[in-house]
Amino acid sequence: MPYGFADIETPVPLVDLDRLAVNLDRMAAYAAMHQLALRPHVKTHKSSRIAAEQMRLGAVGLTVATPRELQVMSEVTDDIFLAHPPLGAKVRRVLTFSGDVQLRISVDSHVAIEQLGTACRQRDQTVDVLVEVDFGMKRMGVSDSGDAIRLAGAIRRQPGLRYRGICFYPGHIRQPVTQQEGLIEALCGDLHNVLAALDDAGLPAEIVSGGSTPAAFRMHLIPGLTEIRPGTYVFNDRDTYAMGACAWEDCALTVLATVISDAVPDQVVIDAGVKALGREPIRVQEGGGYGAVLDHPEVTVARMSEEHGILDLSDSVWRPKVGDQVRIVPNHACIVTHLFDAMLGVRGDIVETWWHVGARGRHSPELAPAPLSI
Amino acid sequence: MPYGFADIETPVPLVDLDRLAVNLDRMAAYAAMHQLALRPHVKTHKSSRIAAEQMRLGAVGLTVATPRELQVMSEVTDDIFLAHPPLGAKVRRVLTFSGDVQLRISVDSHVAIEQLGTACRQRDQTVDVLVEVDFGMKRMGVSDSGDAIRLAGAIRRQPGLRYRGICFYPGHIRQPVTQQEGLIEALCGDLHNVLAALDDAGLPAEIVSGGSTPAAFRMHLIPGLTEIRPGTYVFNDRDTYAMGACAWEDCALTVLATVISDAVPDQVVIDAGVKALGREPIRVQEGGGYGAVLDHPEVTVARMSEEHGILDLSDSVWRPKVGDQVRIVPNHACIVTHLFDAMLGVRGDIVETWWHVGARGRHSPELAPAPLSI
Repeated sequence: MPYGFADIETPVPLVDLDRLAVNLDRMAAYAAMHQLALRPHVKTHKSSRIAAEQMRLGAVGLTVATPRELQVMSEVTDDIFLAHPPLGAKVRRVLTFSGDVQLRISVDSHVAIEQLGTACRQRDQTVDVLVEVDFGMKRMGVSDSGDAIRLAGAIRRQPGLRYRGICFYPGHIRQPVTQQEGLIEALCGDLHNVLAALDDAGLPAEIVSGGSTPAAFRMHLIPGLTEIRPGTYVFNDRDTYAMGACAWEDCALTVLATVISDAVPDQVVIDAGVKALGREPIRVQEGGGYGAVLDHPEVTVARMSEEHGILDLSDSVWRPKVGDQVRIVPNHACIVTHLFDAMLGVRGDIVETWWHVGARGRHSPELAPAPLSI
Repeated sequence: MPYGFADIETPVPLVDLDRLAVNLDRMAAYAAMHQLALRPHVKTHKSSRIAAEQMRLGAVGLTVATPRELQVMSEVTDDIFLAHPPLGAKVRRVLTFSGDVQLRISVDSHVAIEQLGTACRQRDQTVDVLVEVDFGMKRMGVSDSGDAIRLAGAIRRQPGLRYRGICFYPGHIRQPVTQQEGLIEALCGDLHNVLAALDDAGLPAEIVSGGSTPAAFRMHLIPGLTEIRPGTYVFNDRDTYAMGACAWEDCALTVLATVISDAVPDQVVIDAGVKALGREPIRVQEGGGYGAVLDHPEVTVARMSEEHGILDLSDSVWRPKVGDQVRIVPNHACIVTHLFDAMLGVRGDIVETWWHVGARGRHSPELAPAPLSI
């Protein structure tokens, strides 16, 4: 039975169901229109329910970063891309969870290829593998065509591994959307060179997987791209808004919080701090702070402790009272869901449903190699 | 049965059991020596097992910040201080969990006093209440003696509430320990004035509760203080070390991570990012970054994505290889435990035990006011 916000214990993430539906539809339509395979990254919501909706709207499969995400999402789809090379004990766990799943994995090192190949042969499994290429973020990925060719060749030489192409994450494109053009052009040129070199080496990339939320709606401008993997678009956040990549009204995730103190002038304290909002900076300057009030975006979470957020009221005439509830649009939605076990689905002022953040968490003591006791 | 690190899926928090024991003993001995009641804040570990050890070593009770922490810790002790005023739906939940617990709550507003008093009368319960006073942090708490007297009087007038004294959190004292003297002196003067004013008003503070980890071992210098509430001291962290409040060897909590990429020169990528380490700044400058390698503290986590941490190797001759495990001392330990469901207890290179981070998490859908379905 639906209920109102007054009954809710704060802090808790609220998902505006109407806004979520709009965001899901918009990306699905964009991908369909441009014949790009859509493989959303589940890191943002970590929820089976939202992932299932993404699949229903035409996604070809899902992207995950952790073994837990893989485990949970393997009940939603049988086509999963682990965009994070597993090493060590993680290799075994990843393969354990991929029984009925056609698993695809990205790598950027020979060590990862060898460990994965060895484990696949031991288990008589086959996984698809993409070479991760870097186009300017300088995080993961090889930036040299020769390195890409050597990794692709090494994958092909490993029984159990199937070389399918390349992937990249254009995380260096975080500028306002109006300033992205030059970066997209440079990316097109670099991508063209890598693809041509792989062709020449007899290692053509059948799959070319890229994409992020900030540059999501420019992905059709990249020749050769076959697949996009946006994540944040389901909720958007204050950072996405500040980049001009969504409207304020597209922000579907807020953290409901309660004002607990007004003892210090020109500020109030809410019960959402770092442990509810994360301490993510806003990358395009938009007043600073760690989030802003949904209905009063001029008011930011200026400082935080673990369980306290300080709303700076000095630029506002609004004066919330102790006991009032406020909704905070976080700078980075993906961090917020990771901090909670459940999200409430709301329409207007009514709570209609709740969803488990099932893919958060990591280490499973029940999977430890030996019985453990305190 | 104990097992080695190679079998562990990363990232995961490791607690060095020997170092933890030293940290627990040191604070217990300090409090005993100076006849200060020790009421540790559980926010740092959120673990029943460590809380029980704190009680065994002489703590008078525990301090908590959230209803979940209260719920879990009510099975460890019957004497709990909720140092975070509950408002709205939280008031009811807090009282529900305090059946056998002598609950103490801090307030700094008349609204909190009225809501708490009303709920206590409805449930025929009595709670102890402290007035929160601010001595310079400018977060919570009244800074004026007159305000403190008015709140104390309001508490006394509410049947169900029992006025017991004051509390404060000296969170503004974060300087290196060698530079704290002036701030401690100022605090002593301000505290003396507030206590004298309450005495004169016929509202003497029986309990004077304060203390934090950075200034923990100076608390005996504050006349009138009856109780301390340090939290971080159980683990310490890179920030505590940078302030000079512990030795590097006192850092008991590390995050075990695996090197997953060395594709970009002068750096390697580990599988611990914001979702494993948090994005907490180091407040006393010590090379920047979001954590440092336990055995190579010159190497910091210079940049992060959600599931990636970039180790900057430019100031080190050490060159970890893909597949190697590393241990990261986080800037802020309290954030790390909040990000995981379990911690592994280690001695040397052997995992001896694991503990559930039982008090993390918040909203309990099972406690929602109405049945919920998807």
